[in-house]
Amino acid sequence: MGFFTRDIKTMDDLFVHTLRDIYYAENQITKALPTMINKATDPQLKSGFETHLAETRKQIERLEQVFKLHGVDISGVNCPAIDGILKEADEVAGEVADTAVLDAALIAAAQAVEHYEITRYGTLVAWAKQLGRNDCATLLQKNLDEEKATDSKLNNLAESRLNKRAA
Amino acid sequence: MGFFTRDIKTMDDLFVHTLRDIYYAENQITKALPTMINKATDPQLKSGFETHLAETRKQIERLEQVFKLHGVDISGVNCPAIDGILKEADEVAGEVADTAVLDAALIAAAQAVEHYEITRYGTLVAWAKQLGRNDCATLLQKNLDEEKATDSKLNNLAESRLNKRAA
Repeated sequence: MGFFTRDIKTMDDLFVHTLRDIYYAENQITKALPTMINKATDPQLKSGFETHLAETRKQIERLEQVFKLHGVDISGVNCPAIDGILKEADEVAGEVADTAVLDAALIAAAQAVEHYEITRYGTLVAWAKQLGRNDCATLLQKNLDEEKATDSKLNNLAESRLNKRAA
Repeated sequence: MGFFTRDIKTMDDLFVHTLRDIYYAENQITKALPTMINKATDPQLKSGFETHLAETRKQIERLEQVFKLHGVDISGVNCPAIDGILKEADEVAGEVADTAVLDAALIAAAQAVEHYEITRYGTLVAWAKQLGRNDCATLLQKNLDEEKATDSKLNNLAESRLNKRAA
């Protein structure tokens, strides 16, 4: 989560810091996706990434609503986890010559991103409910549902087309 | 995945490199878990981490079997993703004074680790099948099933006890 853990004393502090972690992560993802869109060769994968970029922008807006509802500043904190995951995605996107293999690698990288988001949103929804913030939980649940749907779509795409083409 | 992507030309190369990525990750996890065991205060969480450490060692053995079955050297490659995830876990484990809040943070960190493993094993199982390596897929599926079970256990623990105590 990359926050200053010395500042975390309560569940509320932990909730806000984790919110800032995923806010940073979503913003980094909007910067990484255009490269992945450019690199993808499968038209369905390309359009899937484009859809997800638009979705991610909406998710950022929802996070900003959560910050406002909870009465805290909208800000991010460094998150070494997403930085590492995106670094790997970038490396993969760099140099694989065979387009089918590259697409398979891009899907795997995107699924690692989705799973990071799924785990953080799952945690945030649970914590929001515990803190009595059902309004925040509802918004965070929407983001969680979208990430899970994206992961499923990537899974189907991987299994049905790209891996077969590449093998 | 932190591999030298210029060396990846085929799905088989991608499979082996991703195998080396998760092999490195599992080994790093065995180094990180003892600290998490020490930091955890909830007895169920502590014993859950202990069980998972034993499981992780068996998973590493299964990965070594996969390397052998596939006829390639047993080795790891750097994986910035797991390094980042574990860095966050370590930061969280460092300085939160309230034990219930610390336990909640440790569970969230452990779930981020589990989700990384779930995504990589999911990918590896699919690729192993595509490459006609059902023997490898069976072993990888066992690791995947264990990671999913661990994530569910952490989820139940988080929801039923720790968050309530901490809120």
